[in-house]
Amino acid sequence: MQSNLVFTESIRDSLLKLSADLKPDRIFILTETNVLQAARMFEPPMVDEGEWSIIVVPSGEQHKNLETLSYIWTQLAGASRKSLLCCFGGGMISDIGGFAASTFKRGIRHINIPTSLLAVCDASIGGKTGIDFNGAKNEIGAFAMPEAVIISPAPLTTLPKNEILSGLGEMIKTALIADKDLYVQLLSDENITGNLKALYEAAAKCASIKCRIVAQDPNERNLRKVLNFGHTAGHALESLMLKRQIPVSHGVAVAHGILIALILSHTHNNLPSELIYSYAENFLRPLYHPLPFTCEDYPELLRLMSRDKKNIAGADPMFVLLSDIGKPVTDIPIPPEEITTALDITRDLLF
Amino acid sequence: MQSNLVFTESIRDSLLKLSADLKPDRIFILTETNVLQAARMFEPPMVDEGEWSIIVVPSGEQHKNLETLSYIWTQLAGASRKSLLCCFGGGMISDIGGFAASTFKRGIRHINIPTSLLAVCDASIGGKTGIDFNGAKNEIGAFAMPEAVIISPAPLTTLPKNEILSGLGEMIKTALIADKDLYVQLLSDENITGNLKALYEAAAKCASIKCRIVAQDPNERNLRKVLNFGHTAGHALESLMLKRQIPVSHGVAVAHGILIALILSHTHNNLPSELIYSYAENFLRPLYHPLPFTCEDYPELLRLMSRDKKNIAGADPMFVLLSDIGKPVTDIPIPPEEITTALDITRDLLF
Repeated sequence: MQSNLVFTESIRDSLLKLSADLKPDRIFILTETNVLQAARMFEPPMVDEGEWSIIVVPSGEQHKNLETLSYIWTQLAGASRKSLLCCFGGGMISDIGGFAASTFKRGIRHINIPTSLLAVCDASIGGKTGIDFNGAKNEIGAFAMPEAVIISPAPLTTLPKNEILSGLGEMIKTALIADKDLYVQLLSDENITGNLKALYEAAAKCASIKCRIVAQDPNERNLRKVLNFGHTAGHALESLMLKRQIPVSHGVAVAHGILIALILSHTHNNLPSELIYSYAENFLRPLYHPLPFTCEDYPELLRLMSRDKKNIAGADPMFVLLSDIGKPVTDIPIPPEEITTALDITRDLLF
Repeated sequence: MQSNLVFTESIRDSLLKLSADLKPDRIFILTETNVLQAARMFEPPMVDEGEWSIIVVPSGEQHKNLETLSYIWTQLAGASRKSLLCCFGGGMISDIGGFAASTFKRGIRHINIPTSLLAVCDASIGGKTGIDFNGAKNEIGAFAMPEAVIISPAPLTTLPKNEILSGLGEMIKTALIADKDLYVQLLSDENITGNLKALYEAAAKCASIKCRIVAQDPNERNLRKVLNFGHTAGHALESLMLKRQIPVSHGVAVAHGILIALILSHTHNNLPSELIYSYAENFLRPLYHPLPFTCEDYPELLRLMSRDKKNIAGADPMFVLLSDIGKPVTDIPIPPEEITTALDITRDLLF
């Protein structure tokens, strides 16, 4: 467990303690419409009146944009460099809030309090912040480490199914790159989506794994790239769906991107093919509605993959692949025709 | 001289050499309408066709805003993390360009090629980047070090008087905090504004001084704050003029802010009062048109000073003061009534 992850039953107590340590001159709570009630619960006793403000933005990835960012910056007008922004919400809130904080007056401190499974296991950890721009996911952003991440099962009690599936997508990714036991456990629990306690515990484990990886390579020069497993194709699918105005959750797109990466791992790194089939048959198909893409979408998907941040301009899209569970290999360029074949196989396995 | 400052007669040669070192996959030249002709001069032979693009934005501080930033981000769409942004222009270009680069795909590299005296001696050095927002100067930004700064007298040949005065404001500041000989030289040369060679040499010296200070404290925790001498009141005056739609150059506002800081240095740090009078009589009055502010502007000026990034929310505005030339003292809170008195004295000395 890393020092800046705070696992707690009481968000309020942890926040009070952190506040005493960090001594902000003012606290801004950034939250979203979906979790506003939960945010209000711990708000008033936290600090003296007049020392905190609340900033509410609409929920939904489609609002992770320049307009919302501009609104947050405007609401921060009274903040100084000694102020603290608490991002209470899902991954969209830690993404946009962390970026707003890191750029306001050239940087104020922020902490994350994730309220979705995806945010607990992934988005709130590691300092990748940003907004979508010009049709591309996280096109604008910064590396900005939160001072702390307060992780609690408390806000997870009322998660809709779709949010569970989104979190599960990133959790299975973390398990695949770093923890075989966790992978086996997640794949073998038929009722995993109904078991919030098991989900939270797995998510907390993933948070610690990610935190450990990020600590060794905060700016994604080397090791950290393993966290992008499933993301080259996942981001492209996510962007495609967003453009069609049928947005899907990040982790749902990643769950699909993982299948594509597993297929490429087989052809490029001799990953046993059983792993492709068991993932498709025992995890992806039973739990997820397959994303609706056809061969007519291939050119757009390839274009989106080429625009990925991990890429060199004009070169083939870069993938993270596996040689085995827990053994990721980074920076593998894959030619378009091989990606096309993998997309064909993916559709065969899903439909 | 610091390693990342490249002093050269030929920008093109230096750029070719840097490009060979940095090996970008693509070069984007960001420039502004005022210096477009000069930018075109070194452009075509620099790299192969197809490997570079030019991004042109309108000149003027009023365009250092979210709209221009958004335009630059859009034009960077083909860039990868291996690309390089060359900011060729005045301080506005290195400010907004450095910020655009540091936030595009969470950070691509940039270099600065300053074309104004202010940019040579100050703005292009040290990695402070950003845009004006919501009526406040540099409200949004980041610390983002350029890979290199190419400093050359070549683009300075056609500087208008106002730009010379702006650069001179920052140069006299650097001299006051760090180099008594340079201060004496600048104050004693009656024809300083007509001597481009002397101005360039002084600016290059200031660039090296600033680079040395920044290297010791890149994120402005301590030492670097000395560079804000004259800036608490200077920024407030600059914002006030901008709001009135009679914008003044940054260095011109700083030249005025220095007088206010010298007055406060006398009352707070026993700076000899002769230094106030010699600065006002031998430098500010002969060279600069006094900025038109009256006692009716004091509340707004105080409000703007309180919003300064160096401040703690709700506390008195913070100043950098001098105990002597070359001996700055940072983080001095000054109560509003003392600032008001200093503003009165400033107006007495100027009008």
